Order: sequence, then structure tokens, then C-alpha cells
Amino acid sequence: MMRFAVTLEWNGAAYAGFQRQSHSPSVQQAVEEAAFGVTGEEVRLHAAGRTDAGVHALGMRAHFDLSRTFDPFRMAGALNAHLQMGGHAVAVLDCVEVDEDWHARFSCTGRSYEYHIVNRRAPLTLDVGKAWRISRPLDAGAMHDAAQALVGLHDFTTFRSVHCQSASPVKTLDRLDVRREGERVVVEAAARSFLHHQVRSMVGCLAMVGQGQWTRADLVDALEAKDRCKLGLNAPPDGLYFVKAFYPGE
Amino acid sequence: MMRFAVTLEWNGAAYAGFQRQSHSPSVQQAVEEAAFGVTGEEVRLHAAGRTDAGVHALGMRAHFDLSRTFDPFRMAGALNAHLQMGGHAVAVLDCVEVDEDWHARFSCTGRSYEYHIVNRRAPLTLDVGKAWRISRPLDAGAMHDAAQALVGLHDFTTFRSVHCQSASPVKTLDRLDVRREGERVVVEAAARSFLHHQVRSMVGCLAMVGQGQWTRADLVDALEAKDRCKLGLNAPPDGLYFVKAFYPGE
Repeated sequence: MMRFAVTLEWNGAAYAGFQRQSHSPSVQQAVEEAAFGVTGEEVRLHAAGRTDAGVHALGMRAHFDLSRTFDPFRMAGALNAHLQMGGHAVAVLDCVEVDEDWHARFSCTGRSYEYHIVNRRAPLTLDVGKAWRISRPLDAGAMHDAAQALVGLHDFTTFRSVHCQSASPVKTLDRLDVRREGERVVVEAAARSFLHHQVRSMVGCLAMVGQGQWTRADLVDALEAKDRCKLGLNAPPDGLYFVKAFYPGE
Repeated sequence: MMRFAVTLEWNGAAYAGFQRQSHSPSVQQAVEEAAFGVTGEEVRLHAAGRTDAGVHALGMRAHFDLSRTFDPFRMAGALNAHLQMGGHAVAVLDCVEVDEDWHARFSCTGRSYEYHIVNRRAPLTLDVGKAWRISRPLDAGAMHDAAQALVGLHDFTTFRSVHCQSASPVKTLDRLDVRREGERVVVEAAARSFLHHQVRSMVGCLAMVGQGQWTRADLVDALEAKDRCKLGLNAPPDGLYFVKAFYPGE
């Protein structure tokens, strides 16, 4: 048996998310079918994280097993060729052989996301589906300041989808930085793991702070309420990018 | 009469270029029809430059006249609303009133472009249609060094489309910088004006230098030959962005 770890990039607009769905295209299905096309084997792809419909990935890590050996470099090229033939917006950026005890999800010790807001009145053209446009001026400094209230160990029930399957709503948020780059406001989030919709829920509330609709105290109240109904706003998936998965020894 | 200067952004993938075409959608037609939708007047849009099919704009300047007055801020919003209704990937970033002797094309004293190359083996997903992917490793330093041979006053016949309507092939290239940002190689070009296909032709040849197929001396030979047949390669439109038009007093 040989285990392959792949680094994936995709445009989430065309997919119902990472995970296989019975009636909609998914990234998992695209890559599994490409692997079948290359090897003739039905493989199962495991990823560091599951992403929602419309969410993009710049560097998702995933793995699959093959019963026989195959050169990893040739595997990357062959998977990409099959993905391209299938008209997919998924690319294999890297493919390496890993030990059998390396698991894309269970070995992962950290995950990072970026959320892109374009803060302007004009509609998006080049960034359609790739950012959240907010017309009203955002105070990125106030957003960054408020974001620090969410960093650390908290019960994130307020920022958790009702569909979340995590055993506990208690997570440690390592980093939540907000910075402005011209008309773009970028939110960077890092943690060992996130709850379902956590980044989008945090960004939605930060956007309310940025527009002056909420203060930092309102954000703290929402967090401490541990009540999904106290959520200000869930940001759309378009602006969300899974950036990187971290593993010991890398 | 009232003259409006607009700043336009567009995704070139959907258009045959800026200029009106009888059988294909153009940016000019999209904006003129939006203006008609807003005002009921048939206006004529003049831009700082004409761009090819597939070429994008981040900040093209253009102007049109209206027989009556209209608030410029409301004009921007109304044009955007009409462009959105028409499903267009064109946005009005800014709209101001200008003097009647201000002309988007003839008053323009400088133009700048960027060209984006993604230098990697994997196919593009998020940047499909927005960059030129080159698989072989590019030496951006060698490209920047060779590019300096093109800066200044030259006869750019080699780098000019056979369809170019410019009176003279002699132009002054003010700047041609190449820099690497991770897997991205960005070429910045600035001049009072450019010949048709000049930026794409220069980038195509620089890509040959970057891959070691050409030396700086080969690029100089091609320039001095003043012969379109000596062109190494014309880069695809996907990676080209019209960035900015410059005007006196701005």
C-alpha cells in the first residue's frame, strides 16, 4: 500500500463543498474520480477540513491510499490532466508519499483561513464569487480590535452552525487579524480546528462592528450569550479561503 | 452639456474588447447602453485606451456627454445598477464631472499595465482567464534585467501587431519592471502610449528569457531587427490588466 498526501487548490463556486453529495458536484468526488481515471482504483479521499459550498481552498491537504506504487510527481500531473479533462476547477499543487500513520484530518494540528471583503460601492467584476462586497465604509481597525475579544479559549456556540457535528463548542482561537489593503479588508483566522460556519459567523459579526452597527462590547455579549440566535450575521461563503493545514514536523 | 469622466473596472473574459463590435459584446456597448437606460440619451463613450478581447481593466478612464445635468454620484450608482441588470462584468468605480476640453483619450498623458503570470505546473483554478500559466521555472531576475533593454525611446515594430493603427512605431517606454511574488511573476509597464499588442509581445519575449530560451542579447536583436517576424511569442490576453490612465493635474 502507498499513501499519497496531496495539496489542493479549488474554486468553490462550482462545488457543493469538499464532501461528496449525492446530487451535487463536490471536490472529493472530482479528485476520487480523477484518481480512478489514473489508477483504475476506487480511492477514498480524506481532507484536513470540510468546506461549504462556494468556499475556496488555496492549500487544502488530503490523502488517499493506493494498493500499488506510483511515482508521486507523475501522480500530480496525471490527476491534474484528468481534472482538466473533466472541466474541474480543482488543481493538485503537490503530491508526496507519506507514512501510513499520517492522516490528513487526524494528524492535522492547525488550520488557517482568510476571508476577503471588498469594501466599495461598485459591484464586483473580476472578484465575483471570490469576495464579499460591503458598500458601507468599514473601520478595519475597530474590526481588528473587536476580533481580539474572540481570540483564546471560548465556548463558540453563538458562532456555530446548527448543523455542526463537533463534539464540543469549546475551541481555542489562536489568531483573528483584520487588515486593510486598499479597498480590500482581509480577515486571517488560525486555530487547531474550527466549528462549522465559525469563520463566516465571526466575519459577519466583525462586519457589523466595522460598519458601526455593533461595538466590541456587543460582540463580547454575543460570544458570552452562547446562543446562535445572538449571531449578528453569517458572512457569505464567496469570500472564504481555506489557506493552510499544519502538521507536526513540517 | 455635461461631461462625465468614469473610472471603469471589467473582467475581459466576456468581451471582445473595449471597442464596439458588430457581432460581439464590448465594454463600450455595455456602458453606452447602461447610460441610455439611465438617461434615455444615446451617448458615445471615449476611453483612454482600447483593449483586446480577454484583457481586463482595473482603472480605465472614459468619458461621455449628456445634454442635461445629472448628479455624478447618482450617475455611478445608476450605471452600475443597469450594468448589473444586464449581467455585465463591468463596474463604474468613480464618476465625476469634467470640463468640456477634458478628453479621456487625448488628454491622457500616461498609461500603465500589469501582466500576471502564474509560474507553476498545476493548472489554474481561481485564476482561470486572469493569468498566464507557465509551467517551466521562470528567472524573474533575468526577465527584469532583459526588460531594461526595452525601456526608453525605440522603434517597437517587432512588438507591434500587424493591425496596429498607430502613425509611428516609435514610442518611449517609461518603465518595464518584473518582480516575483511567490508563484506569481508580475510585469509592470508604463508609457505615454503603447502600440497594439506591445505589452503582450514584450511579455511573451520576456517569458522566453525567463525560461532560458532567449538571452538579453536575443531580445535586443529582436528589438533592433524592427521586424514582427522576429517576435518570440505574443503572450495571451488573460494575464493583461489596464491599470491606470494619467492626466495632467491629477
